[in-house]
Amino acid sequence: TVNHARRPRVGHIAFLNCMPIYWGLARTGALLEFDLRRGAPDELSRLLVEGGLDIGPITLVEYLRHRDDLLLIPDPAVAADGPVLSVNLVSKTPLADLPAEPRVSLASFSRTGVLLGRMLLEERYGRRPAYQVTPPDPETALAGADAAVLIGDEALRVHHDPRGRHVLDLAAAWKDWTGLPMVFAVWAVRRDYAEAHPGLVKDVHLAFRESVRLSREEIGAVVASAARWEPFAPAALAEYFDRLQFGLSERHLAGLREFASRAVRYTEVKDLSPEGPEFFDSEV
Amino acid sequence: TVNHARRPRVGHIAFLNCMPIYWGLARTGALLEFDLRRGAPDELSRLLVEGGLDIGPITLVEYLRHRDDLLLIPDPAVAADGPVLSVNLVSKTPLADLPAEPRVSLASFSRTGVLLGRMLLEERYGRRPAYQVTPPDPETALAGADAAVLIGDEALRVHHDPRGRHVLDLAAAWKDWTGLPMVFAVWAVRRDYAEAHPGLVKDVHLAFRESVRLSREEIGAVVASAARWEPFAPAALAEYFDRLQFGLSERHLAGLREFASRAVRYTEVKDLSPEGPEFFDSEV
Repeated sequence: TVNHARRPRVGHIAFLNCMPIYWGLARTGALLEFDLRRGAPDELSRLLVEGGLDIGPITLVEYLRHRDDLLLIPDPAVAADGPVLSVNLVSKTPLADLPAEPRVSLASFSRTGVLLGRMLLEERYGRRPAYQVTPPDPETALAGADAAVLIGDEALRVHHDPRGRHVLDLAAAWKDWTGLPMVFAVWAVRRDYAEAHPGLVKDVHLAFRESVRLSREEIGAVVASAARWEPFAPAALAEYFDRLQFGLSERHLAGLREFASRAVRYTEVKDLSPEGPEFFDSEV
Repeated sequence: TVNHARRPRVGHIAFLNCMPIYWGLARTGALLEFDLRRGAPDELSRLLVEGGLDIGPITLVEYLRHRDDLLLIPDPAVAADGPVLSVNLVSKTPLADLPAEPRVSLASFSRTGVLLGRMLLEERYGRRPAYQVTPPDPETALAGADAAVLIGDEALRVHHDPRGRHVLDLAAAWKDWTGLPMVFAVWAVRRDYAEAHPGLVKDVHLAFRESVRLSREEIGAVVASAARWEPFAPAALAEYFDRLQFGLSERHLAGLREFASRAVRYTEVKDLSPEGPEFFDSEV
């Protein structure tokens, strides 16, 4: 009787914002039951869609494009109900002084954060920007532009040290506009894998939930470890981890649906039905 | 005061025999302080030599070839003082009946295990084999050959289920011949990295030592987890983990020197001086 099981192939984003998701996995032994694949967000999104991962993070826009092949897992997620600190529109002038047709650099590979910036500029602030794609450092991004959408460590750095530039937190702006949280990334399982291995998917889901719970409980240690390696002060890291939300409540799902209904105007996604999105059923 | 530290890039072999090395890293939170790169042994050996890893496993033969650029770390290692179960010469006839010039398949990428097989066949058993490289499954390897050097899961499977084939454990044969343990892989740090970051190297060394200690203490749980995913019964896994040795004693170093002194006849390695190999000094 030979055992033909294989560990689920699970994606992990090795970026600062996902450290609280990883924390508990490396403290409880859960990683021993995963075949963990680390990568950048866009790489992991692609792998999940193509079947190179069974379970993993996917940027919200890519989830919306490929949701026929995927089921959402309620934990973890990357979201914010108000300021997120690391998804910013950075400009040389105050927002109100941006020209009607500003030149805007999209200085990130994050499809969701970039689309959020476009939505806000075009629909909320009534601009008709001309976009260009640039590297993620603020100097290059702003060199020939009026404003830049910055995401991740570079954006967080500008938040803490704006050097005269104006910083609009796009998750805060989204909440001002819609009253709802912004969901940047979700974790999903391939539908075929979930049908074949519901017990393993449940194990992974519960391991992630426990990991996030433990990282909240041990947040001082998470911050101390992050401060050892990341270019931010402990207080800045503590604030950042406090802003980030790692699960999906009903309010987050309302935010996700609101984003999806607006995204159809920009990219090839289908609107979510009122009951959507479709979840993996962890009660099996 | 921006923090410019970066996590040490540490290699991990995601194979069954290295599971006890990984066990504690995933239970103590040590992984949070590493930038862990998983891969196959030959890939990780190459990365360490080329500078794509700071610390990692390297097959003994490659360590001997590149030791001018490397310092050994005493924990972990992969060794055996007698049978290792998973490094085998498999033949259709008893060893004594092998022809003087047998056809022998080398069915592994493991340079050290393959060289051990060659040494024993040529020097211990007085054969003059004609070698061919084949895929690692025993049927293909033995199809047009008198014997095959098999390493890893396939070798362990043949050990437990020989199906009429004869199995010589090459680590046991090495001990019969030399009286010494066989060291298959060592962990090393790049000399330039050790000079620049001795404190980080010490942290990694101690994390590995604690990981192996914890896996011995919790060996029942290690076996239960392995049995969930690997095609071997718990008793077979317990025996295998008991045979494997994960550190370097004086006897292991004598075995390593003995192997090095014989390897010079086969491949481009330099003999180790009587004082060698050169270690990273963890007393810093």
